[in-house]
Amino acid sequence: MPYEWAGRKSAKPVDPALEALVRDIIGKIADKWTMLILETLEAHGTLRFTELGHKVGDISQKMLTKTLRQMEADGLITRKVHPVVPPHVDYALTDLGRGLGAAFCSVWVWAETHYDDIEKSRAAFAARQDAV
Amino acid sequence: MPYEWAGRKSAKPVDPALEALVRDIIGKIADKWTMLILETLEAHGTLRFTELGHKVGDISQKMLTKTLRQMEADGLITRKVHPVVPPHVDYALTDLGRGLGAAFCSVWVWAETHYDDIEKSRAAFAARQDAV
Repeated sequence: MPYEWAGRKSAKPVDPALEALVRDIIGKIADKWTMLILETLEAHGTLRFTELGHKVGDISQKMLTKTLRQMEADGLITRKVHPVVPPHVDYALTDLGRGLGAAFCSVWVWAETHYDDIEKSRAAFAARQDAV
Repeated sequence: MPYEWAGRKSAKPVDPALEALVRDIIGKIADKWTMLILETLEAHGTLRFTELGHKVGDISQKMLTKTLRQMEADGLITRKVHPVVPPHVDYALTDLGRGLGAAFCSVWVWAETHYDDIEKSRAAFAARQDAV
């Protein structure tokens, strides 16, 4: 189905196995924390775990750990352990992660362009709910 | 921070209130179900609740209801109740929703282009974990 998108550049035939694989990938990366971590690492370069958490904002340590682990497994970031005392670990984007960040960029631009439409729509929706 | 993305077209200054608003929007839309529903409605046009659920795939009725409600509030979809017996309800994209679908399109293209890199990375990650 994604192949039917207007403007889709892919000319590949729809292979159900490939489709399932792509959906699985989308299921993992279409996640607000993944998107916010990509953006933070793009803006700040290499960061340690704690710095990254502060810059991403209100993310729990558990969720940050889980998201970073998935992103490392998918090849979006590198995790480097420095054998110093106390040891420290830092995170940076790979080329693959930078590519995904660039792809998400159009979603940020959309959100910036349309935030007022969305705000208006939310207010109208809330008013409709109150009227029921 | 999103304003620092390479290739970002926005020339707007970084206003913390706007930044928070955009992050809130991203937090709601950067979600796999939102993305899969957008894609399904783009491919199939207007759909009833049950049809939409089947086409999206393994989504629970509760999650489908919740996601559609958020998407309606945000102005991404319309929800139309037909006063027939039994009543039926159908869903379609708005122009705003179509715009977001188009923005997400580059993420689908990225996933299609790089699924093999991601698969290889996952296998290598699993092997590293086993070796520990």
